Amino acid sequence: MPADPQIDKLNFDESGLIPIIVQDHANGEVLMMAFMNREAIERTIATGKVHTYSRSRGRLALKGETSGHFQLVKRIFTDCDRDVVLFQVEQIVAACHEGYRSCFFRQYEPGADDWKVAATKAFDPAHVYEKK
Amino acid sequence: MPADPQIDKLNFDESGLIPIIVQDHANGEVLMMAFMNREAIERTIATGKVHTYSRSRGRLALKGETSGHFQLVKRIFTDCDRDVVLFQVEQIVAACHEGYRSCFFRQYEPGADDWKVAATKAFDPAHVYEKK
Repeated sequence: MPADPQIDKLNFDESGLIPIIVQDHANGEVLMMAFMNREAIERTIATGKVHTYSRSRGRLALKGETSGHFQLVKRIFTDCDRDVVLFQVEQIVAACHEGYRSCFFRQYEPGADDWKVAATKAFDPAHVYEKK
Repeated sequence: MPADPQIDKLNFDESGLIPIIVQDHANGEVLMMAFMNREAIERTIATGKVHTYSRSRGRLALKGETSGHFQLVKRIFTDCDRDVVLFQVEQIVAACHEGYRSCFFRQYEPGADDWKVAATKAFDPAHVYEKK
């Protein structure tokens, strides 16, 4: 793959990673935060599907590989410091492995003992992840 | 300040920090990404104004302290792993110190040599930051 000067202008951290935000292109919902390395960004741009770098597994991961819940890239932005990348995507079914459309389904409630689930599930994780 | 069990349930990293995303509560625009420590979250909740932890300056910072461009908190969410916090805010004037409403004003354009500025300025940084 030829070098992409726009990727060269991003500021990766000392581990070669950059935080990324994924947002629904249609309604603005923030779906998840993750990390990419250079290869994940190149693969995401080349395929049009979000690929992240999993720090726990130490490898590239196609988002939705198991579930089929891909994130189809519509627009890409970076911030003033070029050290965060924002992907606006078409989300197939849902982003969260717990079954919610967005990973940000827990809301702060003043005085409560725990965060409250503020969304309903878009799919049943047991069904989606066990049958494959 | 009494301990807040919801803050206790967040997963701070080994440096005691947690990445945060700030989003316009009205139109869903992603305004910036930053970091908070426990004290920044407590101060943000207590005052209703976003406070971040500046890694470069090694201290707490009230967002908008110099410019008056505060972020007034409307709703707070955390994600499935409880290791990112999303703040939905009313943004006074603009979030970016470069004068744009959102820090994510640079858009990727296939084949281009550099990211393209995809927004117009909401204020003149020279005017806002020099006169104080």
